Amino acid sequence: MRRVHLAGPASRSDLANYTGLNRSTVGDLVAELTARGLVQERAGPRGAPGRPSPIVTANPNGITVLAIAIFDDSLAVAIIGLGGRVLARESVERARDGSSAEATIARVAGICRTLLDGRPEQSPVQAIGIAVAGVVQRSDGELVVGPNLGWRHVALGELLRTTLGLDVPVFTANDADMATLAEHLRGAGMGCDDFVCLWGEVGVGAGIIAGGRPLSGRSGFAGEVGHLPLSPAGRLCHCGARGCWETEVGEHALLRRAGRAGSGGPGAIDLVLARADAGDPVAISAIEASGLWLAVGLATVIHTLNPERIALAGFFASILPYARDALTKALSELAIEPLAAAAIVPARLGADGPLIGAAELAFEHWLDDPASVPLIDRPEWSSTADRRVAAKEVGATRLAI
Amino acid sequence: MRRVHLAGPASRSDLANYTGLNRSTVGDLVAELTARGLVQERAGPRGAPGRPSPIVTANPNGITVLAIAIFDDSLAVAIIGLGGRVLARESVERARDGSSAEATIARVAGICRTLLDGRPEQSPVQAIGIAVAGVVQRSDGELVVGPNLGWRHVALGELLRTTLGLDVPVFTANDADMATLAEHLRGAGMGCDDFVCLWGEVGVGAGIIAGGRPLSGRSGFAGEVGHLPLSPAGRLCHCGARGCWETEVGEHALLRRAGRAGSGGPGAIDLVLARADAGDPVAISAIEASGLWLAVGLATVIHTLNPERIALAGFFASILPYARDALTKALSELAIEPLAAAAIVPARLGADGPLIGAAELAFEHWLDDPASVPLIDRPEWSSTADRRVAAKEVGATRLAI
Repeated sequence: MRRVHLAGPASRSDLANYTGLNRSTVGDLVAELTARGLVQERAGPRGAPGRPSPIVTANPNGITVLAIAIFDDSLAVAIIGLGGRVLARESVERARDGSSAEATIARVAGICRTLLDGRPEQSPVQAIGIAVAGVVQRSDGELVVGPNLGWRHVALGELLRTTLGLDVPVFTANDADMATLAEHLRGAGMGCDDFVCLWGEVGVGAGIIAGGRPLSGRSGFAGEVGHLPLSPAGRLCHCGARGCWETEVGEHALLRRAGRAGSGGPGAIDLVLARADAGDPVAISAIEASGLWLAVGLATVIHTLNPERIALAGFFASILPYARDALTKALSELAIEPLAAAAIVPARLGADGPLIGAAELAFEHWLDDPASVPLIDRPEWSSTADRRVAAKEVGATRLAI
Repeated sequence: MRRVHLAGPASRSDLANYTGLNRSTVGDLVAELTARGLVQERAGPRGAPGRPSPIVTANPNGITVLAIAIFDDSLAVAIIGLGGRVLARESVERARDGSSAEATIARVAGICRTLLDGRPEQSPVQAIGIAVAGVVQRSDGELVVGPNLGWRHVALGELLRTTLGLDVPVFTANDADMATLAEHLRGAGMGCDDFVCLWGEVGVGAGIIAGGRPLSGRSGFAGEVGHLPLSPAGRLCHCGARGCWETEVGEHALLRRAGRAGSGGPGAIDLVLARADAGDPVAISAIEASGLWLAVGLATVIHTLNPERIALAGFFASILPYARDALTKALSELAIEPLAAAAIVPARLGADGPLIGAAELAFEHWLDDPASVPLIDRPEWSSTADRRVAAKEVGATRLAI
């Protein structure tokens, strides 16, 4: 199930090779997943010698989840189906007007309702994942603090469930962690066991995969690298400390150095890049300063974690082509030789990373235990007895492969 | 086996509770471990109602390993038996005279030989673990660089095996990683899944346990925190970069600030502490500066990893009582609130940490698979047939609990 969900359509032979199970067991498992509406099969390609191996595909309508991203500047909602298929999506800008968590969640719930109403014939969503720009407690999903949102100690999941009136599980996590999960499963970190995704916006955060597993730390706060104390003589950060990394490398720092302090958001960064394209030396040197400060923090991350690959997300991905030379030069001076070999690549999923990660968080429960998804009515089974037979035939086989 | 090795003597009832196996299975397993000479049993305490539950103890002579630590200033060798019992031990000072890896290993081999010759009646050691002050490649145990040793690309294990003429497996790892393993298994990090052990000497390094597992990174270089670029306007480091953390917080920095530049080694630090005890303001302010710079790096580690506990080892443990106030105050200013809660404690195993960790590295193979240890002759078994029966009785039971 995980394999077809993450890596796309696969023949029964592929699945037998991947799982190490024999063809007949794979056939049983596929039959059960089909009976639960989680996968669909179609005949495989003809022409090769031997029987064609049917192609197994995740059924996007088998399980659908709501994925929600709450950023400082925008809100995004998507209905995402098994296999990662985006079935409906909407995003809106968010003013930094200090609006409350309640008001923001009411707005999010309104978007959710519109998207769900647009699919009246479909079964309701089975879970909700929220990615939010803040520190989230692992144990209960509480938003401990959203520094730029101005929120503290909010049970976002409960608030959304109540506002939306949907009785499904809600999972909440940090946006950078979710971008990392998404990049690890479906983007720039695929197949990489020691991976860091660094997220640059107004705030800066990282998600860490170490030894193939997310590194969350004792309370889920790992990756708060925006507050690395890297600039002792630097500016005061909103967190109260002086010289945090994000005061040198966050969006405000770039805009300030480019002579555009006070502006903000995606358009403002694009304008700096356009000026650099036009040869404006102020814009170019502002971007180079970002590259240099990126190298200082990346050297820190690299010496601590020895990752194989680091993906830059958010506006860091946009400035990477412009900042790469300054970054590479500074990093080669700052990092000891075998560590400096970490590959620095742009994230692949763009601004959708946190949203896709939030969906994966919501899918996780069913991927762990697909047998918990109820059997569905299928036209070719004319009676309850037929369904019972179908269920019994496959019931003894472990599904969670 | 792991339980009695790490946590000491346990009754059969304790082992049944710990493993979740029934008493009779535990009895079978203990019988097999006894037959292989790995544990010993003695009658349990009398007086409690019911049958006394025999007490199972690791047999220190069941498996013995050579543990070797190669530091910038000293060399240590121990013969360590199952249960972590130190059976023989010797350490010597090492001059920083630029002597080669070959010369140093010849000296180590000499000490090993003396210790082994002192136990002529015992079976030979079954493995060797080496902890070394340098960057070690995980895949093959090659010392990539020992910055203060002045060595590059040395296959220490192979060199020692050849020099010593012992055909047993040799495992090599970074000294800070081994101190961390030891503290995690037997010291200040026991029972703590998110743990960092920070090692201060001339160089500074950390070992990381994340989610209960050692974090080694892509190539085993994780925890090279001595080279975090934390002091942009700082001194040139021997690694070639400017302002590495160890230039502010390593032994040289403390001695320099205390007016004792050029001295070094354990005695030199003790002298600074003695002067602080006597109220010398230069010594006191030098230690406080170390505390402040410790906080800068610890804030970095804490924001990246969110550990539950950080143990300070090496001379950091010695200065902690003197530097604690400066450290705590600076950390509360530098770290965002929920993260600053990480406990900072002295390491418990002192300078023996890397040695004990190296021994655990060498034991690991047999703890993973105690059934690979051959059956031993026991006086109460009068014939080969008896031994065969004993082996057969327990042979089908899985041992690696």
